[in-house]
Amino acid sequence: MTAWTLAQRAAKMNPSVIREILKVTEKPGIISLAGGLPSPQTFPVESFAQAAAQVLAHDGVSALQYAASEGYTPLREAIAGFLPWDVDPDQVLITTGSQQALDLIAKVLIDEGSRVLVETPTYLGALQAFAPMEPQVVAVASDDEGVLVDDLAAQVGSGADKARFLYVLPNFQNPTGRTMTEARRQQLVDRAAALGLPLVEDNPYGDLWFDQPPPPPLTARNPDGCIYMGSFSKVLAPGLRLGFLVAPRHIYPKLLQAKQAADLHTPSFNQRLVAEVMKNGFLDRHVPTIRALYKAQCEAMLGALEEHLRPLGVHWSRPAGGMFLWLRLPQGMSATQLLPRAVEHNVAFVPGAAFYAGDGDPRTLRLSFVTASEAQIRTGIAALAAAIQMTTP
Amino acid sequence: MTAWTLAQRAAKMNPSVIREILKVTEKPGIISLAGGLPSPQTFPVESFAQAAAQVLAHDGVSALQYAASEGYTPLREAIAGFLPWDVDPDQVLITTGSQQALDLIAKVLIDEGSRVLVETPTYLGALQAFAPMEPQVVAVASDDEGVLVDDLAAQVGSGADKARFLYVLPNFQNPTGRTMTEARRQQLVDRAAALGLPLVEDNPYGDLWFDQPPPPPLTARNPDGCIYMGSFSKVLAPGLRLGFLVAPRHIYPKLLQAKQAADLHTPSFNQRLVAEVMKNGFLDRHVPTIRALYKAQCEAMLGALEEHLRPLGVHWSRPAGGMFLWLRLPQGMSATQLLPRAVEHNVAFVPGAAFYAGDGDPRTLRLSFVTASEAQIRTGIAALAAAIQMTTP
Repeated sequence: MTAWTLAQRAAKMNPSVIREILKVTEKPGIISLAGGLPSPQTFPVESFAQAAAQVLAHDGVSALQYAASEGYTPLREAIAGFLPWDVDPDQVLITTGSQQALDLIAKVLIDEGSRVLVETPTYLGALQAFAPMEPQVVAVASDDEGVLVDDLAAQVGSGADKARFLYVLPNFQNPTGRTMTEARRQQLVDRAAALGLPLVEDNPYGDLWFDQPPPPPLTARNPDGCIYMGSFSKVLAPGLRLGFLVAPRHIYPKLLQAKQAADLHTPSFNQRLVAEVMKNGFLDRHVPTIRALYKAQCEAMLGALEEHLRPLGVHWSRPAGGMFLWLRLPQGMSATQLLPRAVEHNVAFVPGAAFYAGDGDPRTLRLSFVTASEAQIRTGIAALAAAIQMTTP
Repeated sequence: MTAWTLAQRAAKMNPSVIREILKVTEKPGIISLAGGLPSPQTFPVESFAQAAAQVLAHDGVSALQYAASEGYTPLREAIAGFLPWDVDPDQVLITTGSQQALDLIAKVLIDEGSRVLVETPTYLGALQAFAPMEPQVVAVASDDEGVLVDDLAAQVGSGADKARFLYVLPNFQNPTGRTMTEARRQQLVDRAAALGLPLVEDNPYGDLWFDQPPPPPLTARNPDGCIYMGSFSKVLAPGLRLGFLVAPRHIYPKLLQAKQAADLHTPSFNQRLVAEVMKNGFLDRHVPTIRALYKAQCEAMLGALEEHLRPLGVHWSRPAGGMFLWLRLPQGMSATQLLPRAVEHNVAFVPGAAFYAGDGDPRTLRLSFVTASEAQIRTGIAALAAAIQMTTP
C-alpha cells in the first residue's frame, strides 16, 4: 500500500463555503443571490471575438508561445497608465486572476504562525489563499467607514509577533459593500506608516461606483508601504483570469520568483486579448454601462428589501458601488440556520459567518445584486422574507 | 519606514537560471539552443482562430464567466479518454500549465524539511516549484534507463523522515532526453509499491516520440500510488498555460482546495479553446507533424555534433523523442565556464549544473533541438565547437 502523507498545511485547507453553496444553488429554479458572478450581460463578447481574431492574425505566434513571468509589456504599461499614482510598468506583475496575487503575497510574506491582520469581516478568498502558509489571522475591528485605526495599533503586535501586513479592501468591500471614507484612508495610511506596518490593498471593485468614484487608493498615498492588487474580472470578464499587482521595488523580485514557480506566466494569449480590447479607450465607454446596470439592480434590491424586509426588523447597508449588500437579521436569528429554509423557498445567499477570521456575527448575510435580473431580485427578496417569517423565533 | 519582513521561504526562492540565460540570449544574432520553447511552426494558429470564433459565438458567456475549480467537464472527459488506463474524469484536475500542478502537489504533500526524491539530474522547474515548501531534496542515482531502484530503496528514508514522493519524468526527460525502459518502469513501480512510496509522474513530452511510442506510463501500472501530470504545451501551444493532473480519489480533494486558493480556476476560455481544437481527432493529425519536424531537427543536431564535436572528445545522448539532448564535455572542462565563451560565438545552451538537486556534473550541458531551424542548429553547433576549442585545457 502506498503511504501518502499529507503536509500539515493540508489540514488547514478547506473547500470554499461559497463554492459549496453555489453547488446547492445549481438546482433548477433557484434564484441565487449568493455568488459574486458578474452579470453576463456585461461581457463584451463581440469585442473579445474581434480581439481574438486580431491577435491571432497579427501576433499569433507570440500569443501561443512561452513568455516572460512579469507579463506582456504593453499590458503592464496600460495598467501603469490608468492607475492614479506614479507607477513604473516594471513594478506591475501580471497574475492569473487577483486570487493568484494573494497566493504569491502569502508565499513571500507569511511564515507559519505569522500574524496577519484582516478587516472584520473580510474577503473569504483571501483567507483561503493565506491558509496554506499557516498564518495566525487576527481581525481588526471595523465600522461602516472601514478599519478602526486604534484597534489596528492594538492588534499589530511587536517583535517576532509583529503583523506582516494588513489586508484591506477599501472600495465596495466584499462582503459588506462598505467603502472607506477619505478621512479614514488617510488616517489608516498615516497610522500604518507610523507603526511600520505594510498594507496589502485589494481593489477589484473600485471602478464599479454608482454616482461618484471612491477616494484615491491607499497605495497612492504611500507606494513603498503597500502592495496593490487589481483585476479585469469585474470590468471585462472573470473567465480570462487576469489580474495584477503593483509592489515596491525591493519586494517585487521575490513575488516574481514565486510567480515563476507557480505557473511560469499568465497565459500570453489572454494578456494580448485584454490589451487589444482595451485599445482606444474601450473601458471608458464600457465600464459606465456596467455601473448603470449594477446601480439599477442595487436599487431594485433596496426597493424590495424596503418592501419585504423592513417590516421584519432586518437591517442592511446601502452600498455606493460594487456587487454586494450586507444584511443583519433580527436578534436571535442565525443566517446559517436560515439558509436551508431559504433554499426551500428557492432563494440563496451566503451566511456572514463565512467571512470572519474568528467568530462572526451569526445574524449577518451577504446578498449579491449583480447576477440576478431585477425581476429575479424582487422575487428572490420576497422569497427570503417568506423564509424569514417561517423561522422568526 | 514600513518594515517589510519576508517569509523564511523567500530566501529559498531564486530566479530561474534558465530564464536568466534566456535574457542573455535575447541579444540579436545569437542562436539559442538553451530554452525549451516549442517550435512556433508547430502552433496551429489558424485552428485556434477558428476555435476562438466558434467558442465566443456559441458559448461566449460561459467562456468569460467564473467556473468550477475542477475544470471544464468536456475537457476533463477528453483527457480521461485519451489516457492509456482507466481514468474517471472526476480524477482529472485542470491546471494553469503543468507547472501549477507541481505547485499544488508541493503545497499538499511537502512540509518544511520533508524528504523529496528526484532523479539525477531532474527538471529545474520542479525544483523551483517545490522550493517554497522547503523540502529536503534528495537525488536518486540514475543511469541511461532511468532511476536506479536499489538507490531508491537506500534513499527513501523511514519514519518521519520517509520521502513524501519520488518525482520522475520517464519520457524524453528534461534535461537528459533519456527514456525509462519498460523493464525499469515495472521495476520502479514494483519497488515503490513495496516501499509504500508515492510517485509523481510528469509527462509533458510523451507524445513527441520519433519512431515508436514510449512504454506505458508508471501511473497506468499503479494508479492509486501515483499522481500523473500532463500538458498541452508541447502538442498545441504553451502560451495558453493548460495542463492537468490525475490523482487518487483520496488525494484529489486537497489538490482541488489548493487549486481554488491558488487561482480559483484555469481560464474558462482557454479550456474551451483547447476542447474545441481537439474535436474530431485534431491531435491525431497534428502531433505527427510535430514528431516529424523534431525528429528532423534532432537528426540535424546529431549530424552536426558528429561532424564538429566528436573530434573534440565530447559525448552526447541520442534521444528517442522530446526536445532535448544532453552533452558531456571532455575531462577538466566546465559547461558553466564555457557558456560566456559560447555566447561570444553567438550560441547559447544551459549548463547541466542547473538541473542537479545537489552537486552536479560540471561537464554536462543541455541542448534543445526544437526552437532553432536545421540551418541554425548546424551553425550553432559549429560555433559551440569553436568555443570549446578556445577553452580546451
